[in-house]
Amino acid sequence: MACPFASNNDSEDTMGSLMEHGGQNYTSYLQLHKILNAQRLESEADGHKVHDEHLFIIIHQAYELWFKQIIYEVDSVREIFSVEEVDERKMLEIIKRIHRVTLILKLCVDQFLILETMTPLDFMEFRDYLSPASGFQSFQFRLLENKLGVKSEHRVRFNQEHYMKVFGDHKENLHRIQESEREPSLQELLAKWLERTPGLDSKGFKFWKMYKRAVDASLAAQKLEFDQEKIEAKKKQLLDAWKKRQELFNSIFDTSIHNALVARGERRLSHQALQGALMISFYREEPRFNQPYQLLNLLMDVDSLMTKWRYNHVMLVQRMIGSQQIGTGGSSGYQYLRSTLSDRYKVFIDLFNLSTFLLPRDSIPTLTRHMKHRLSVHETHAQKGRTSAARGLTEEEEDFSLDDSDDLPDDADSPKKLEDVPCRDAPAVVGTLDSEASGSVVANGPETSTEK
Amino acid sequence: MACPFASNNDSEDTMGSLMEHGGQNYTSYLQLHKILNAQRLESEADGHKVHDEHLFIIIHQAYELWFKQIIYEVDSVREIFSVEEVDERKMLEIIKRIHRVTLILKLCVDQFLILETMTPLDFMEFRDYLSPASGFQSFQFRLLENKLGVKSEHRVRFNQEHYMKVFGDHKENLHRIQESEREPSLQELLAKWLERTPGLDSKGFKFWKMYKRAVDASLAAQKLEFDQEKIEAKKKQLLDAWKKRQELFNSIFDTSIHNALVARGERRLSHQALQGALMISFYREEPRFNQPYQLLNLLMDVDSLMTKWRYNHVMLVQRMIGSQQIGTGGSSGYQYLRSTLSDRYKVFIDLFNLSTFLLPRDSIPTLTRHMKHRLSVHETHAQKGRTSAARGLTEEEEDFSLDDSDDLPDDADSPKKLEDVPCRDAPAVVGTLDSEASGSVVANGPETSTEK
Amino acid sequence: MACPFASNNDSEDTMGSLMEHGGQNYTSYLQLHKILNAQRLESEADGHKVHDEHLFIIIHQAYELWFKQIIYEVDSVREIFSVEEVDERKMLEIIKRIHRVTLILKLCVDQFLILETMTPLDFMEFRDYLSPASGFQSFQFRLLENKLGVKSEHRVRFNQEHYMKVFGDHKENLHRIQESEREPSLQELLAKWLERTPGLDSKGFKFWKMYKRAVDASLAAQKLEFDQEKIEAKKKQLLDAWKKRQELFNSIFDTSIHNALVARGERRLSHQALQGALMISFYREEPRFNQPYQLLNLLMDVDSLMTKWRYNHVMLVQRMIGSQQIGTGGSSGYQYLRSTLSDRYKVFIDLFNLSTFLLPRDSIPTLTRHMKHRLSVHETHAQKGRTSAARGLTEEEEDFSLDDSDDLPDDADSPKKLEDVPCRDAPAVVGTLDSEASGSVVANGPETSTEK
Amino acid sequence: MACPFASNNDSEDTMGSLMEHGGQNYTSYLQLHKILNAQRLESEADGHKVHDEHLFIIIHQAYELWFKQIIYEVDSVREIFSVEEVDERKMLEIIKRIHRVTLILKLCVDQFLILETMTPLDFMEFRDYLSPASGFQSFQFRLLENKLGVKSEHRVRFNQEHYMKVFGDHKENLHRIQESEREPSLQELLAKWLERTPGLDSKGFKFWKMYKRAVDASLAAQKLEFDQEKIEAKKKQLLDAWKKRQELFNSIFDTSIHNALVARGERRLSHQALQGALMISFYREEPRFNQPYQLLNLLMDVDSLMTKWRYNHVMLVQRMIGSQQIGTGGSSGYQYLRSTLSDRYKVFIDLFNLSTFLLPRDSIPTLTRHMKHRLSVHETHAQKGRTSAARGLTEEEEDFSLDDSDDLPDDADSPKKLEDVPCRDAPAVVGTLDSEASGSVVANGPETSTEK
Repeated sequence: MACPFASNNDSEDTMGSLMEHGGQNYTSYLQLHKILNAQRLESEADGHKVHDEHLFIIIHQAYELWFKQIIYEVDSVREIFSVEEVDERKMLEIIKRIHRVTLILKLCVDQFLILETMTPLDFMEFRDYLSPASGFQSFQFRLLENKLGVKSEHRVRFNQEHYMKVFGDHKENLHRIQESEREPSLQELLAKWLERTPGLDSKGFKFWKMYKRAVDASLAAQKLEFDQEKIEAKKKQLLDAWKKRQELFNSIFDTSIHNALVARGERRLSHQALQGALMISFYREEPRFNQPYQLLNLLMDVDSLMTKWRYNHVMLVQRMIGSQQIGTGGSSGYQYLRSTLSDRYKVFIDLFNLSTFLLPRDSIPTLTRHMKHRLSVHETHAQKGRTSAARGLTEEEEDFSLDDSDDLPDDADSPKKLEDVPCRDAPAVVGTLDSEASGSVVANGPETSTEK
Repeated sequence: MACPFASNNDSEDTMGSLMEHGGQNYTSYLQLHKILNAQRLESEADGHKVHDEHLFIIIHQAYELWFKQIIYEVDSVREIFSVEEVDERKMLEIIKRIHRVTLILKLCVDQFLILETMTPLDFMEFRDYLSPASGFQSFQFRLLENKLGVKSEHRVRFNQEHYMKVFGDHKENLHRIQESEREPSLQELLAKWLERTPGLDSKGFKFWKMYKRAVDASLAAQKLEFDQEKIEAKKKQLLDAWKKRQELFNSIFDTSIHNALVARGERRLSHQALQGALMISFYREEPRFNQPYQLLNLLMDVDSLMTKWRYNHVMLVQRMIGSQQIGTGGSSGYQYLRSTLSDRYKVFIDLFNLSTFLLPRDSIPTLTRHMKHRLSVHETHAQKGRTSAARGLTEEEEDFSLDDSDDLPDDADSPKKLEDVPCRDAPAVVGTLDSEASGSVVANGPETSTEK
Repeated sequence: MACPFASNNDSEDTMGSLMEHGGQNYTSYLQLHKILNAQRLESEADGHKVHDEHLFIIIHQAYELWFKQIIYEVDSVREIFSVEEVDERKMLEIIKRIHRVTLILKLCVDQFLILETMTPLDFMEFRDYLSPASGFQSFQFRLLENKLGVKSEHRVRFNQEHYMKVFGDHKENLHRIQESEREPSLQELLAKWLERTPGLDSKGFKFWKMYKRAVDASLAAQKLEFDQEKIEAKKKQLLDAWKKRQELFNSIFDTSIHNALVARGERRLSHQALQGALMISFYREEPRFNQPYQLLNLLMDVDSLMTKWRYNHVMLVQRMIGSQQIGTGGSSGYQYLRSTLSDRYKVFIDLFNLSTFLLPRDSIPTLTRHMKHRLSVHETHAQKGRTSAARGLTEEEEDFSLDDSDDLPDDADSPKKLEDVPCRDAPAVVGTLDSEASGSVVANGPETSTEK
Repeated sequence: MACPFASNNDSEDTMGSLMEHGGQNYTSYLQLHKILNAQRLESEADGHKVHDEHLFIIIHQAYELWFKQIIYEVDSVREIFSVEEVDERKMLEIIKRIHRVTLILKLCVDQFLILETMTPLDFMEFRDYLSPASGFQSFQFRLLENKLGVKSEHRVRFNQEHYMKVFGDHKENLHRIQESEREPSLQELLAKWLERTPGLDSKGFKFWKMYKRAVDASLAAQKLEFDQEKIEAKKKQLLDAWKKRQELFNSIFDTSIHNALVARGERRLSHQALQGALMISFYREEPRFNQPYQLLNLLMDVDSLMTKWRYNHVMLVQRMIGSQQIGTGGSSGYQYLRSTLSDRYKVFIDLFNLSTFLLPRDSIPTLTRHMKHRLSVHETHAQKGRTSAARGLTEEEEDFSLDDSDDLPDDADSPKKLEDVPCRDAPAVVGTLDSEASGSVVANGPETSTEK
């Protein structure tokens, strides 16, 4: 088999003879001397080779290779998100990388089918060589969880405390774990980025205010309808349900409730970030929200797949060592693993719960023409700097010097221009908007000239 | 994450404290210091790190790990098949291992989806570091093909000749390749084993003779029907089709035609092995043929999946480097790879073509009662030796002492006991089973005592 | 596209002209006029077509088609198992069908990925047309659960009681559901079959007695080792763990504990069936246990996949409608579905837990030579009847007329002759095998004539 | 099982009682009376029920449901693309739908694994009921091929001519097929859209001119290097390869060669469309090209998966009916199907071959600042109309009235302004750009002020 990347234009002869010129070849490039010499069967070393131990080793190594790749991708995305203003020209690459992560996780989930060809009896034959069994811990998987955003305080107790013992004798690994707990996780970086979503600003589009208005209207209408129900029992039921719905919405409007849920680990996003995520969901069709919206979906996929991986893992453990427990005290391996299926291990749980707060399409607040424009323009850092420089303006001045729209006289009054301020200062979901959010657009504020 | 094999009964505390006692831990057991330190990006070494080179390395390493596992399983099965008489108690394990191979191959096929997230532009950025591109050759994949049974003479020309150049500088690899060409392949071992299918014997059931009779009857009946067609044009058509069918069947009855096809690489099984495979297909419901039948199906799966792997590979190459070719001379990488999709790379091609020679269920020759019995009894070597020895019979004598067919009036006398002999002495799954090809069986021959 | 089953030998012209002769064609054979005219978008009918409703309908219809196929296969296997003595010649077919069920379930699990391309906003747009949402119930899925063996009393309360309301207005469906609760489930039929595993007999091999002896020895040895531990704290720990292990084993030896667990729904197999399953696991390499062992594994796959399907379902619901709940009372759709992930919905839970009771290979009681023989011989009904008839013996007599053991002097007394009975007359794979529960077996008991 | 869309906030009681209010329920909504009553086993009707015929029917029906869904999605995308100027706000939806198509096709490919559990012997038992076998034709699959863009003239002969016979007796189906051959295919609509890629314009960025310049430079540099090779044999080799590369590039620069390839079916895109596709590939990171680039990749996935589907189909047919052919004349079903694997059935073949024409990242022509701006701004129709109207300008005038860049005096001369013209006239990859492509940007033409 030639590798996927056999050259395309060479004739057979060329292919052959070029080989002679040395150069990095496949085997040494892939360091196969390491990869293919890292399988030592303990059972064999002990004189009782167990056939299936080979699979056990290989499959775990394959998992570790993939975990390394996932961490590599997640780190690269975390890095892009680490700057104050994310360059929108990187969005395609971010999407690509997170999409790749989901494909790898999907493969990892499917991979369990292979390990399930090993039977408990097979496993029992070499299991003792791996003692202490509980020592089997994938350092990289923990690292990945941390980097995605699983917080130590949300882990089940055993999982919180004992990692020191598990990883303690690999100084470097322990160090990397601790570092991963300190560094901003992908979840946290995402939250920061969502907080900067254009349109959340207190001035300008004021998404949150408009959203609340729409919710209130929806609730009021529903109440009115339910109040007219004749059958008393049913009316009570409907109103109870309505009450719950109201409470649910209240939990996102009342910051103190929201914060309490965050404190309890049931929500993860800051209040502002939650608003950003909702806004992106509602207006995902606007060009500038396309990629952010795809990203939010992919992050849910990541969470789902992590959780499916854990679930497959639990199933396998049950098959290999059973789940039954008689008597008192202690949780079994199976029970412990089952506990990690809790929603507390889902770092993007808020994105799943967004669906609770959606409104029917026709209740969604209409974008102002200005907002629509903002959401159709991207910008890169380079451009921003350059434009300002070219004009010989400081950024500060620039905010107020955008009026280049003398051809649209009715836009001349300053108040409306302010609308742009948040727009430019918003550190960018999706980048900051600069001067080409041209004056004429400014002219038409949300209240005065909204359009469908 | 605790690994799949966290112990089950320990309490949390036990899990923690047991850690302290040392013992092989996960990281060192898996030799992760090798596995996770084998990714060196050439582009990075050169000062222009290309993000996607990491994926390129990891995925190829994952492939190589899996290839190693597949080779490990195939070798283990080849070893089991290498003895004269295969121990039937190993059949379950053989099935398990080949089934595992199919699951791994399925994973390998799916894995291409991940590599497809790399784009041609990404690839182009680091492709030159891998020069000469055509040097990329997976030694293990070639090894696997050889061990399965791809013959050098059936490979396309380029693939035949140039491997020396590709693998030439890894003495050990070259040696293993050459060895794999000399050693019996899985395909060849399978053929030997099929040749020993019970019931093919010239004495006894005489499957082939009975099969030919059934085919002839089927052809004759069909001819009769077609001859009565009134419309001339259609009649001609039907008879043409019939003629072809007859020729096809003739190609398996006429040994010289069969051998000619083998010489041309269009068939791979010996004439006797082909008979065995057909017999197993027909009588797969008989207990003793259950596992052999499953094995034949799994081997077709292996072939299909190898071929799907190659096809996915071709698609990927087309995407990465294109397939268009203008001008004269030489085949491109794409064209070369496409040529390996030929049926000549299918080592179990005969199993696929068996379907051509099947007969409707009601035309299949009925098993004799004796044959039915033979196919419901398994035996192991240990038993065989012991029984014969215990009886003080030579094997030779035993063969002829089987007569249990007097209609068994008196069970006290020895003849009846003999009925058990095959039961204990049948040397193989589908082993040679010489002994029961015995005179007494003849007495119960197909004509005299067939039963439904 | 020609369908997979284009004829193979016809020339193009033949293919064309044969068309003219009428005959069932693809479109009418598949009744595509029904299948492809069963998609009515409620949103469209209401004047506000929602694009994604089409997918919603199609995917649910695809699920229902597959559920029908799974039920068809499960019913066919239940039928085979419904007879007193299962014909061993049907085992291959059973394996094939259950394997097919696992492949279909795997597809059904993967299918969720497609539905996840619909977003909550999309769903919200047509969700109201489907009111009452909770009315969406797959009757076939409930039927399947029942047929597999989910018991009404193990379901969560809501799931137990309300199906009447859900299915109540489809008389026939309601009837089929009720019937499925009365009829023996696959789980129950499997249990019956396992109870008849050869070797469990109180006479003969006495598997259970031998197994208990081996367990006791293992526990005793372990205790001895732990008692010698010097460090007091650790000793206590080890002995605690040992105690738990002992209790666990005790739960299968003490019938009253076992039955109590069955009553609580934590075990499902009868005590005798559990023994059969364990025995098959231990001696799976014996030819006669090959297929039964494969079957047990496949049934675990079915359970795992049903559970993965439910898990994927839960994930989807969380994504579509959220999982957050504030305030008091009532469980949400999400919470309800999550509750069905309980092990109480796993009908083959005992098979998973078998691993708890395994012993290392070298502690497994050695099969007697007689038992080894029994496990290498299959028999069909036809043979049994015929043989007995031919001999003019009643079954009763037959048991004692098999004397073939003169060459084994210590077997000379009649009981030993019985050893052969199973060989010719054993009525089933693992059928009832009443007859070989014979005295002679005792004579060859484990202590006197075991062999490796 | 409650369906994925159980309501979330209702308490159990609510769930129960709401049921009573009627409303569309699951069973009738899905028209299960049609779906689940469309399986009639011909073998059963004929008195010889063949178990596996049920699977055969169900799986084909599932395929047909999915084909319907794919056609539905493809049609919806074709419709969006059918207008002169594609609304950029629809891009996210287009991506979603084509992505969904790829997931469905992936499922369809995997689905073959299920059909492969049927054996040739099983199939043979009911195959005759389906006569004439060759009549099995999926009308929807042909329709799908046509709608994607498979042209009748590129089909293999048999496939071209005989569909009349196959579909001839279903008037409506025949009509739909013929219509699908007349209507613009997705491939053709894509080509039209690519031709409008901003930046291809003869004025303005002049991508093609710049690309050719870069290619020429690259070729020249390579030639220079090869000319210096000392070893004569190798030099010849290198120069031969170079020559081929040059010819290949020439084939896209020389319109007559390109058109000749199109005429032969080896290319499908018009010359201008090819340029657009290349441009999108090179500048995919620019926000406005993000979605188009994702689309191009997804379309390749569609092509790959269609082709993998066909390949799996061929493998299945080989397994069911064999591939061997003896004697003369006619192609078998297997051979016919294999022929459809030709690249001529790949409608987006040009996208695969783009990789041949890529340039290393550092050779790619740098975007002008203006071009960069154009590629960061999206626009919708509504906006466009409104802006022009607000200004009281005709579109024609607008093109030339953009100069609002007094702060950049050196831009005052008309030539640079022209740069904008293409920008606004480009009928929009991705929408037309309107006035907010503000003047200052205009100032920096490609030659004078490119930036990294």
